[in-house]
Amino acid sequence: MSRQIRKSGIHTIDWHLPALSSSGSAHHLSTELFVLTYGALVSDLCKEYSNDEEINHRLETMGYNIGVRLIEDFLACSCVEKCQSYQETADVIAKVAFKMYLGVTPSVTSSSPAGDEFSLLLDSNPLEDFIEELPEGHSSLLYSNLLCGILRGALQKVRLAAHVELIQNGGKGEKKTEIRLSFLGKLEENLPKSED
Amino acid sequence: MSRQIRKSGIHTIDWHLPALSSSGSAHHLSTELFVLTYGALVSDLCKEYSNDEEINHRLETMGYNIGVRLIEDFLACSCVEKCQSYQETADVIAKVAFKMYLGVTPSVTSSSPAGDEFSLLLDSNPLEDFIEELPEGHSSLLYSNLLCGILRGALQKVRLAAHVELIQNGGKGEKKTEIRLSFLGKLEENLPKSED
Repeated sequence: MSRQIRKSGIHTIDWHLPALSSSGSAHHLSTELFVLTYGALVSDLCKEYSNDEEINHRLETMGYNIGVRLIEDFLACSCVEKCQSYQETADVIAKVAFKMYLGVTPSVTSSSPAGDEFSLLLDSNPLEDFIEELPEGHSSLLYSNLLCGILRGALQKVRLAAHVELIQNGGKGEKKTEIRLSFLGKLEENLPKSED
Repeated sequence: MSRQIRKSGIHTIDWHLPALSSSGSAHHLSTELFVLTYGALVSDLCKEYSNDEEINHRLETMGYNIGVRLIEDFLACSCVEKCQSYQETADVIAKVAFKMYLGVTPSVTSSSPAGDEFSLLLDSNPLEDFIEELPEGHSSLLYSNLLCGILRGALQKVRLAAHVELIQNGGKGEKKTEIRLSFLGKLEENLPKSED
Protein backbone atom coordinates (compact mmCIF):
# COMPACT_ATOMS: atom_id res chain seq x y z
CA MET A 1 0.00 0.00 0.00
CA SER A 2 1.56 3.23 -1.09
CA ARG A 3 -0.10 6.56 -1.45
CA GLN A 4 1.76 9.54 -2.74
CA ILE A 5 0.30 12.51 -0.93
CA ARG A 6 2.10 15.40 -2.53
CA LYS A 7 5.25 15.97 -4.40
CA SER A 8 6.08 19.61 -4.46
CA GLY A 9 8.41 22.07 -2.82
CA ILE A 10 10.66 20.97 -0.03
CA HIS A 11 8.20 18.58 1.52
CA THR A 12 7.35 15.23 0.07
CA ILE A 13 5.54 12.45 1.75
CA ASP A 14 5.61 9.07 0.23
CA TRP A 15 2.85 7.67 2.36
CA HIS A 16 4.19 4.24 2.08
CA LEU A 17 3.36 1.35 4.33
CA PRO A 18 5.17 -1.60 2.82
CA ALA A 19 6.47 -2.70 6.16
CA LEU A 20 3.00 -3.38 7.42
CA SER A 21 2.16 -5.68 4.56
CA SER A 22 5.08 -8.02 5.06
CA SER A 23 5.34 -9.92 8.29
CA GLY A 24 9.08 -9.74 8.75
CA SER A 25 9.31 -6.01 8.45
CA ALA A 26 6.26 -5.31 10.53
CA HIS A 27 7.73 -7.47 13.21
CA HIS A 28 11.07 -5.78 12.97
CA LEU A 29 9.49 -2.37 13.15
CA SER A 30 7.43 -2.90 16.21
CA THR A 31 10.39 -4.56 17.88
CA GLU A 32 12.37 -1.31 17.81
CA LEU A 33 10.02 0.44 20.18
CA PHE A 34 10.07 -2.53 22.51
CA VAL A 35 13.85 -2.77 22.44
CA LEU A 36 14.33 0.92 23.21
CA THR A 37 11.74 0.79 25.98
CA TYR A 38 13.48 -2.23 27.46
CA GLY A 39 16.72 -0.27 27.36
CA ALA A 40 15.02 2.53 29.30
CA LEU A 41 13.82 0.00 31.86
CA VAL A 42 17.29 -1.50 32.37
CA SER A 43 18.81 1.95 32.53
CA ASP A 44 16.31 2.94 35.20
CA LEU A 45 17.11 -0.16 37.24
CA CYS A 46 20.81 0.68 36.98
CA LYS A 47 20.03 4.03 38.58
CA GLU A 48 17.80 2.48 41.21
CA TYR A 49 20.08 -0.37 42.31
CA SER A 50 23.82 -0.25 42.69
CA ASN A 51 24.30 -3.99 42.80
CA ASP A 52 24.14 -6.00 39.57
CA GLU A 53 22.81 -9.04 41.38
CA GLU A 54 19.85 -7.00 42.56
CA ILE A 55 19.22 -5.72 39.03
CA ASN A 56 19.48 -9.20 37.57
CA HIS A 57 17.07 -10.52 40.17
CA ARG A 58 14.65 -7.66 39.56
CA LEU A 59 14.71 -8.24 35.79
CA GLU A 60 14.12 -11.95 36.28
CA THR A 61 11.20 -11.33 38.62
CA MET A 62 9.65 -8.78 36.27
CA GLY A 63 10.06 -11.32 33.48
CA TYR A 64 8.40 -14.03 35.55
CA ASN A 65 5.36 -11.83 36.12
CA ILE A 66 5.23 -11.07 32.39
CA GLY A 67 5.65 -14.75 31.48
CA VAL A 68 2.67 -15.96 33.51
CA ARG A 69 0.50 -13.52 31.55
CA LEU A 70 2.17 -13.75 28.14
CA ILE A 71 1.68 -17.53 28.01
CA GLU A 72 -2.06 -17.01 27.66
CA ASP A 73 -1.53 -14.85 24.60
CA PHE A 74 0.98 -17.35 23.27
CA LEU A 75 -1.33 -20.35 23.64
CA ALA A 76 -4.25 -18.43 22.16
CA CYS A 77 -2.34 -17.18 19.13
CA SER A 78 0.15 -19.91 18.34
CA CYS A 79 -2.14 -22.94 18.25
CA VAL A 80 0.57 -24.80 20.15
CA GLU A 81 -0.88 -27.28 22.57
CA LYS A 82 1.15 -29.65 24.68
CA CYS A 83 4.59 -30.94 23.94
CA GLN A 84 5.65 -34.58 24.00
CA SER A 85 9.08 -34.04 25.41
CA TYR A 86 11.41 -31.43 26.84
CA GLN A 87 13.15 -31.38 23.47
CA GLU A 88 9.91 -30.43 21.77
CA THR A 89 9.20 -27.82 24.40
CA ALA A 90 12.61 -26.28 23.81
CA ASP A 91 11.98 -26.36 20.05
CA VAL A 92 8.62 -24.64 20.43
CA ILE A 93 10.16 -21.96 22.62
CA ALA A 94 12.90 -21.33 20.07
CA LYS A 95 11.00 -21.71 16.81
CA VAL A 96 7.57 -20.42 17.72
CA ALA A 97 7.76 -18.21 20.81
CA PHE A 98 11.02 -16.37 20.11
CA LYS A 99 10.03 -15.96 16.48
CA MET A 100 6.65 -14.63 17.47
CA TYR A 101 7.73 -12.10 20.06
CA LEU A 102 11.27 -11.17 19.10
CA GLY A 103 11.42 -12.12 15.43
CA VAL A 104 14.45 -14.36 15.87
CA THR A 105 14.97 -18.10 16.19
CA PRO A 106 17.66 -19.29 18.60
CA SER A 107 19.41 -22.60 18.01
CA VAL A 108 18.64 -25.33 20.51
CA THR A 109 22.01 -26.83 21.41
CA SER A 110 24.03 -28.60 24.10
CA SER A 111 21.30 -30.87 25.35
CA SER A 112 22.17 -32.85 28.44
CA PRO A 113 22.45 -36.66 28.22
CA ALA A 114 19.21 -36.93 30.17
CA GLY A 115 17.51 -34.65 27.65
CA ASP A 116 16.30 -32.22 30.29
CA GLU A 117 18.71 -29.33 29.72
CA PHE A 118 19.21 -27.22 26.63
CA SER A 119 20.91 -24.06 25.55
CA LEU A 120 19.10 -21.46 23.50
CA LEU A 121 21.76 -19.73 21.44
CA LEU A 122 20.89 -16.40 19.85
CA ASP A 123 23.13 -15.28 17.00
CA SER A 124 21.30 -12.01 17.14
CA ASN A 125 19.56 -10.72 20.25
CA PRO A 126 17.15 -7.89 19.43
CA LEU A 127 17.16 -6.71 23.04
CA GLU A 128 20.86 -5.91 22.69
CA ASP A 129 20.62 -4.31 19.25
CA PHE A 130 21.43 -0.88 20.56
CA ILE A 131 23.91 -1.96 23.20
CA GLU A 132 27.55 -1.40 22.39
CA GLU A 133 28.68 -2.53 25.81
CA LEU A 134 27.29 -2.90 29.30
CA PRO A 135 26.77 0.33 31.25
CA GLU A 136 29.87 1.46 33.12
CA GLY A 137 30.16 -0.13 36.52
CA HIS A 138 27.74 -2.91 35.60
CA SER A 139 30.04 -5.62 34.29
CA SER A 140 27.97 -8.36 35.95
CA LEU A 141 24.68 -7.15 34.55
CA LEU A 142 22.68 -9.87 32.80
CA TYR A 143 21.15 -7.49 30.33
CA SER A 144 18.52 -9.80 28.86
CA ASN A 145 17.63 -11.50 32.13
CA LEU A 146 13.99 -10.54 31.61
CA LEU A 147 13.84 -13.34 29.02
CA CYS A 148 14.85 -15.93 31.62
CA GLY A 149 12.08 -14.78 33.91
CA ILE A 150 9.54 -14.81 31.09
CA LEU A 151 10.45 -18.39 30.22
CA ARG A 152 10.31 -19.51 33.85
CA GLY A 153 6.94 -17.82 34.39
CA ALA A 154 5.41 -19.10 31.16
CA LEU A 155 6.62 -22.66 31.76
CA GLN A 156 5.39 -22.58 35.34
CA LYS A 157 1.95 -21.61 34.09
CA VAL A 158 1.83 -24.75 31.94
CA ARG A 159 2.99 -26.75 34.95
CA LEU A 160 6.60 -27.14 34.00
CA ALA A 161 9.14 -26.22 36.64
CA ALA A 162 12.32 -24.92 35.10
CA HIS A 163 15.54 -23.22 36.04
CA VAL A 164 16.43 -20.65 33.41
CA GLU A 165 19.75 -18.89 33.43
CA LEU A 166 21.47 -16.37 31.22
CA ILE A 167 24.88 -17.96 30.71
CA GLN A 168 26.27 -15.31 28.42
CA ASN A 169 25.31 -11.83 27.30
CA GLY A 170 25.40 -11.24 23.58
CA GLY A 171 27.23 -8.27 22.19
CA LYS A 172 28.49 -6.51 19.14
CA GLY A 173 31.47 -8.88 18.99
CA GLU A 174 31.33 -12.59 18.37
CA LYS A 175 29.49 -13.42 21.53
CA LYS A 176 26.09 -15.01 21.31
CA THR A 177 23.42 -14.72 23.94
CA GLU A 178 23.10 -18.10 25.65
CA ILE A 179 20.17 -19.05 27.81
CA ARG A 180 20.38 -22.33 29.69
CA LEU A 181 17.07 -24.05 30.20
CA SER A 182 16.91 -26.84 32.78
CA PHE A 183 13.61 -28.62 33.13
CA LEU A 184 12.98 -29.72 36.69
CA GLY A 185 9.77 -31.66 36.23
CA LYS A 186 6.04 -31.43 35.90
CA LEU A 187 4.11 -29.60 38.58
CA GLU A 188 0.97 -31.04 40.10
CA GLU A 189 -0.71 -27.74 40.68
CA ASN A 190 -0.96 -24.75 38.44
CA LEU A 191 -1.02 -21.82 40.78
CA PRO A 192 1.74 -19.45 39.81
CA LYS A 193 1.57 -16.24 41.71
CA SER A 194 3.11 -12.89 41.09
CA GLU A 195 6.50 -12.43 42.68
CA ASP A 196 7.84 -9.30 44.29
CA MET B 1 2.66 -22.18 7.36
CA SER B 2 1.52 -25.09 9.43
CA ARG B 3 3.42 -28.18 10.27
CA GLN B 4 1.83 -30.91 12.27
CA ILE B 5 4.61 -32.43 14.34
CA ARG B 6 2.88 -35.31 16.02
CA LYS B 7 -0.57 -36.29 16.93
CA SER B 8 -0.50 -38.97 19.52
CA GLY B 9 -0.96 -39.42 23.21
CA ILE B 10 -1.69 -36.50 25.43
CA HIS B 11 0.65 -34.12 23.69
CA THR B 12 -0.03 -32.61 20.35
CA ILE B 13 1.76 -29.77 18.73
CA ASP B 14 0.20 -28.05 15.84
CA TRP B 15 3.31 -26.20 14.81
CA HIS B 16 1.36 -23.46 13.30
CA LEU B 17 2.58 -20.00 12.53
CA PRO B 18 -0.31 -18.26 10.85
CA ALA B 19 0.16 -15.14 12.88
CA LEU B 20 3.55 -14.53 11.37
CA SER B 21 2.26 -14.62 7.85
CA SER B 22 -0.32 -11.90 8.30
CA SER B 23 0.85 -8.45 9.21
CA GLY B 24 -1.94 -7.55 11.61
CA SER B 25 -1.51 -10.57 13.78
CA ALA B 26 2.25 -10.44 13.82
CA HIS B 27 2.01 -6.88 14.93
CA HIS B 28 -0.53 -7.70 17.57
CA LEU B 29 1.57 -10.55 18.87
CA SER B 30 4.77 -8.71 19.29
CA THR B 31 2.85 -5.86 20.89
CA GLU B 32 1.82 -8.06 23.81
CA LEU B 33 5.38 -8.47 25.04
CA PHE B 34 5.98 -4.75 24.71
CA VAL B 35 2.78 -3.86 26.53
CA LEU B 36 3.52 -6.18 29.44
CA THR B 37 7.10 -4.93 29.66
CA TYR B 38 5.85 -1.36 29.67
CA GLY B 39 3.51 -2.30 32.50
CA ALA B 40 6.49 -3.64 34.44
CA LEU B 41 8.34 -0.39 33.83
CA VAL B 42 5.46 1.77 35.07
CA SER B 43 4.96 -0.51 38.03
CA ASP B 44 8.65 -0.18 38.90
CA LEU B 45 8.45 3.61 38.70
CA CYS B 46 5.43 3.54 41.00
CA LYS B 47 7.58 1.74 43.56
CA GLU B 48 10.51 4.08 43.02
CA TYR B 49 8.66 7.40 43.18
CA SER B 50 5.80 8.27 45.48
CA ASN B 51 4.72 11.33 43.55
CA ASP B 52 2.73 10.94 40.32
CA GLU B 53 4.22 14.12 38.90
CA GLU B 54 7.67 12.65 39.24
CA ILE B 55 6.57 9.42 37.57
CA ASN B 56 4.88 11.30 34.75
CA HIS B 57 8.00 13.40 34.24
CA ARG B 58 10.23 10.34 34.31
CA LEU B 59 8.07 8.54 31.71
CA GLU B 60 8.10 11.61 29.49
CA THR B 61 11.87 11.94 29.72
CA MET B 62 12.39 8.24 29.00
CA GLY B 63 10.08 8.63 26.04
CA TYR B 64 12.01 11.64 24.79
CA ASN B 65 15.25 9.67 24.83
CA ILE B 66 13.53 6.83 22.99
CA GLY B 67 11.99 9.22 20.45
CA VAL B 68 15.27 10.78 19.37
CA ARG B 69 16.50 7.28 18.50
CA LEU B 70 13.28 5.77 17.20
CA ILE B 71 12.89 8.53 14.61
CA GLU B 72 15.88 7.17 12.71
CA ASP B 73 14.25 3.78 12.45
CA PHE B 74 10.98 5.41 11.48
CA LEU B 75 12.48 7.50 8.69
CA ALA B 76 14.48 4.54 7.38
CA CYS B 77 11.54 2.15 7.33
CA SER B 78 8.54 4.30 6.53
CA CYS B 79 9.81 6.16 3.46
CA VAL B 80 8.24 9.28 4.94
CA GLU B 81 10.28 12.36 4.18
CA LYS B 82 9.21 15.86 5.08
CA CYS B 83 5.71 17.09 5.65
CA GLN B 84 4.16 20.16 4.08
CA SER B 85 2.18 21.26 7.06
CA TYR B 86 1.51 20.55 10.70
CA GLN B 87 -1.69 18.85 9.62
CA GLU B 88 0.27 16.44 7.46
CA THR B 89 2.76 15.84 10.23
CA ALA B 90 -0.08 14.98 12.60
CA ASP B 91 -1.56 12.67 9.96
CA VAL B 92 1.75 10.89 9.44
CA ILE B 93 2.15 10.42 13.18
CA ALA B 94 -1.34 8.96 13.46
CA LYS B 95 -1.57 6.93 10.27
CA VAL B 96 2.00 5.79 9.79
CA ALA B 97 3.92 5.95 13.07
CA PHE B 98 1.21 4.76 15.47
CA LYS B 99 0.19 2.07 13.01
CA MET B 100 3.76 0.95 12.61
CA TYR B 101 4.73 0.76 16.26
CA LEU B 102 1.49 0.16 18.11
CA GLY B 103 -0.78 -1.27 15.42
CA VAL B 104 -3.47 1.35 15.95
CA THR B 105 -4.46 4.54 14.18
CA PRO B 106 -5.64 7.43 16.34
CA SER B 107 -8.04 9.99 14.93
CA VAL B 108 -6.62 13.46 14.40
CA THR B 109 -9.22 15.83 15.83
CA SER B 110 -9.79 19.21 17.45
CA SER B 111 -7.33 21.18 15.39
CA SER B 112 -6.81 24.75 16.52
CA PRO B 113 -7.89 27.63 14.25
CA ALA B 114 -4.21 28.35 13.54
CA GLY B 115 -3.71 24.73 12.50
CA ASP B 116 -0.85 24.17 14.92
CA GLU B 117 -2.57 22.08 17.56
CA PHE B 118 -4.22 18.70 17.24
CA SER B 119 -5.58 15.94 19.40
CA LEU B 120 -4.67 12.33 18.75
CA LEU B 121 -7.60 10.30 19.96
CA LEU B 122 -7.07 6.58 20.53
CA ASP B 123 -10.21 4.45 20.67
CA SER B 124 -7.98 1.63 21.74
CA ASN B 125 -4.65 2.15 23.47
CA PRO B 126 -2.55 -1.03 23.39
CA LEU B 127 -0.41 0.20 26.28
CA GLU B 128 -3.48 0.11 28.49
CA ASP B 129 -4.78 -3.22 27.26
CA PHE B 130 -4.09 -4.95 30.52
CA ILE B 131 -4.95 -2.03 32.78
CA GLU B 132 -8.26 -2.25 34.55
CA GLU B 133 -7.61 0.90 36.53
CA LEU B 134 -4.70 3.00 37.69
CA PRO B 135 -2.57 1.58 40.52
CA GLU B 136 -3.92 2.43 43.96
CA GLY B 137 -2.68 5.76 45.20
CA HIS B 138 -1.73 6.89 41.71
CA SER B 139 -4.85 8.66 40.51
CA SER B 140 -2.80 11.37 38.78
CA LEU B 141 -0.60 8.93 36.90
CA LEU B 142 -0.41 9.61 33.18
CA TYR B 143 0.00 5.98 32.29
CA SER B 144 0.94 6.37 28.64
CA ASN B 145 3.07 9.46 29.12
CA LEU B 146 5.99 7.69 27.45
CA LEU B 147 4.19 8.28 24.15
CA CYS B 148 4.24 12.05 24.69
CA GLY B 149 7.96 11.98 25.29
CA ILE B 150 8.56 9.80 22.24
CA LEU B 151 6.63 12.25 20.05
CA ARG B 152 8.46 15.27 21.48
CA GLY B 153 11.87 13.62 21.03
CA ALA B 154 11.17 12.36 17.52
CA LEU B 155 9.79 15.74 16.39
CA GLN B 156 12.73 17.57 17.94
CA LYS B 157 15.09 15.36 15.96
CA VAL B 158 13.43 16.50 12.72
CA ARG B 159 13.66 20.08 13.94
CA LEU B 160 10.11 20.53 15.06
CA ALA B 161 9.60 21.92 18.53
CA ALA B 162 6.42 20.62 20.08
CA HIS B 163 4.59 20.48 23.36
CA VAL B 164 2.96 17.11 23.79
CA GLU B 165 0.57 16.39 26.60
CA LEU B 166 -1.52 13.46 27.68
CA ILE B 167 -4.92 15.06 28.24
CA GLN B 168 -6.75 11.92 29.19
CA ASN B 169 -5.87 8.36 30.07
CA GLY B 170 -7.81 5.68 28.25
CA GLY B 171 -9.47 2.92 30.15
CA LYS B 172 -11.78 -0.02 30.04
CA GLY B 173 -14.77 2.29 30.11
CA GLU B 174 -15.73 4.80 27.47
CA LYS B 175 -12.69 6.98 27.89
CA LYS B 176 -10.31 7.41 25.00
CA THR B 177 -6.65 8.23 25.33
CA GLU B 178 -6.17 11.80 24.18
CA ILE B 179 -2.78 13.26 23.35
CA ARG B 180 -2.61 16.98 22.64
CA LEU B 181 0.06 17.94 20.16
CA SER B 182 1.02 21.63 19.95
CA PHE B 183 3.58 22.56 17.35
CA LEU B 184 5.78 25.44 18.50
CA GLY B 185 7.80 26.03 15.36
CA LYS B 186 10.74 24.90 13.32
CA LEU B 187 14.13 24.68 15.00
CA GLU B 188 17.24 26.04 13.37
CA GLU B 189 19.57 23.48 14.80
CA ASN B 190 19.14 19.79 15.13
CA LEU B 191 21.03 18.88 18.23
CA PRO B 192 18.71 17.03 20.54
CA LYS B 193 20.49 15.63 23.51
CA SER B 194 19.53 13.00 25.98
CA GLU B 195 17.68 14.28 29.00
CA ASP B 196 18.05 13.08 32.55
